[in-house]
Amino acid sequence: MRKIEPNILAQKIKEGDRYALSKAITLAESSRLDDLKLAHEIISLLPTSTTSKRIAITGIPGVGKSTFIESLGKYIISQGQKVAILAIDPSSSLSKGSILGDKTRMEDLSREDNAFIRPSASNGSLGGVTSRTYEAILLCEAAGFETILIETVGVGQSETLVNEISDLFLFLQLPGSGDDLQGIKRGIMEMADLIFVNKSDSFQEKLVKDAKLDIVRSLQFLPTKTSQWKRKSIIGSGLIGKGIPELWEMIDEYFRFINENEYYLKNRTNQQLKQAERYTIDLVNQHYLKALKSTPITHNQSISAFEMAKNWLENNPVEITIK
Amino acid sequence: MRKIEPNILAQKIKEGDRYALSKAITLAESSRLDDLKLAHEIISLLPTSTTSKRIAITGIPGVGKSTFIESLGKYIISQGQKVAILAIDPSSSLSKGSILGDKTRMEDLSREDNAFIRPSASNGSLGGVTSRTYEAILLCEAAGFETILIETVGVGQSETLVNEISDLFLFLQLPGSGDDLQGIKRGIMEMADLIFVNKSDSFQEKLVKDAKLDIVRSLQFLPTKTSQWKRKSIIGSGLIGKGIPELWEMIDEYFRFINENEYYLKNRTNQQLKQAERYTIDLVNQHYLKALKSTPITHNQSISAFEMAKNWLENNPVEITIK
Repeated sequence: MRKIEPNILAQKIKEGDRYALSKAITLAESSRLDDLKLAHEIISLLPTSTTSKRIAITGIPGVGKSTFIESLGKYIISQGQKVAILAIDPSSSLSKGSILGDKTRMEDLSREDNAFIRPSASNGSLGGVTSRTYEAILLCEAAGFETILIETVGVGQSETLVNEISDLFLFLQLPGSGDDLQGIKRGIMEMADLIFVNKSDSFQEKLVKDAKLDIVRSLQFLPTKTSQWKRKSIIGSGLIGKGIPELWEMIDEYFRFINENEYYLKNRTNQQLKQAERYTIDLVNQHYLKALKSTPITHNQSISAFEMAKNWLENNPVEITIK
Repeated sequence: MRKIEPNILAQKIKEGDRYALSKAITLAESSRLDDLKLAHEIISLLPTSTTSKRIAITGIPGVGKSTFIESLGKYIISQGQKVAILAIDPSSSLSKGSILGDKTRMEDLSREDNAFIRPSASNGSLGGVTSRTYEAILLCEAAGFETILIETVGVGQSETLVNEISDLFLFLQLPGSGDDLQGIKRGIMEMADLIFVNKSDSFQEKLVKDAKLDIVRSLQFLPTKTSQWKRKSIIGSGLIGKGIPELWEMIDEYFRFINENEYYLKNRTNQQLKQAERYTIDLVNQHYLKALKSTPITHNQSISAFEMAKNWLENNPVEITIK
């Protein structure tokens, strides 16, 4: 790769150059510390949006996330806005990105000038998954994408992560889901601001009504969100676009609400601080991982792994120097 | 809690005292560094088994893991052996353990003297999830449980984690599963040593046969495992116990194979070294998290989160001291 000039790349991103945007995200996703530092140099040259909408979208496999996001994305564009779609995928080191790479996803949307789609390519080696998506968000916003849809891949951990870098948490559900996911579901419901019951067109009317009742019942037992927003649910279908305009109206209502009570900015500040903490730990870890590579722990049959770790730390002081 | 004497607790564990075993695992799971150190003091007083079987069991929600594990566990006991069942659950900070806690699981098995069942109670604050399960394994083995079934909860990340602390990776599958999980499945298949097609009694014969063909076809495209073991699959049902004796025979065959070619001990040594590395990083992180708590990062509107992290690290040298 030719030497990258941060100011030139930053300028191009501000002008909406998609190639420059992709390049900067690739730098942020890199496993080389130098690349990451370069990405942050670029980010520091760019303005931070205080009007963008960062929307987390989650749901179990099979809920129809891709179709829903394509439908919502197209609707957002039809409203004259630009939309970026990112993915957060803690399992990608396992599947090697094949979940996202296997299929030609969101075909229609990917042809739109006002849409930017970026599947996650985290390899788990440097920094956290959240960090990388966080950087991608900042870069997309600087390029003029004011609505960011952050899709989670995998079930379990990714929801907590995405919740820490978004303004709104949207949970997709199917009518009549099994008992197996009750525990996970409850945790997600607590984080959710909006619940979209998807695929309502392919289920029996009774099941759809039951799902709606079930949600309304569940919501009343959940603790109030810090934002003071009252969770809402809506029934629809990504496939036929049912409920999408109403959902977008609810999203707008949510953002008006959290702007008025100033939760929006307060939350952003807290998220930024949390992110700074994550970077701190990440940077420290990088130093130690490097030291462990150059001076590996020696195996000792007569002591435990914990003792080996303690001995290594005693004998290998690591200096943290960030230039 | 009364002051704990490590030697007394270690002695009791060696004698097979279940209460002492539970207590030591609780210490290892604690979020207090002192408790963790105490747990490791106890572990260092105990012998390490070089004959035990650490078996990872994984599969998507709905595959019937609990029923399968109960069935396998009872069979192991019927063979005159003791079995411990542990769970690895990276999503527990989200669901607050409710996945495991909600249901009365493995009722029959929990009444057996020769079974020890321990749901995961990791709260995500100290050390990694793997570490805690690793410690629980060592403690169970010292108490005479020579077969350890390690169940994964959640989909995605936990499989990689459990693979790093087990000898054998067993993947449960359903006949005719959806396209949605193809990517995740491929990654898991690569790790798998044995594949058990579960619930064969409740699916149509054709689907079961297709599943078997599908697996045999998939397996031939996978890279050879480091152990040189050739992956095997078996059709059965945890619910009616079908295929369980045959599976146990295969497990035995696997362990004979990796003992003969010495992979068993080599792998254990590598895992212990990897674990020592994890402890090293964990211990460092604990020091930094503590420092971040006592000297929080100050928010600065005009710089990025990354810059805040760098500034904090420059101004807050942290000394790593492990006594």
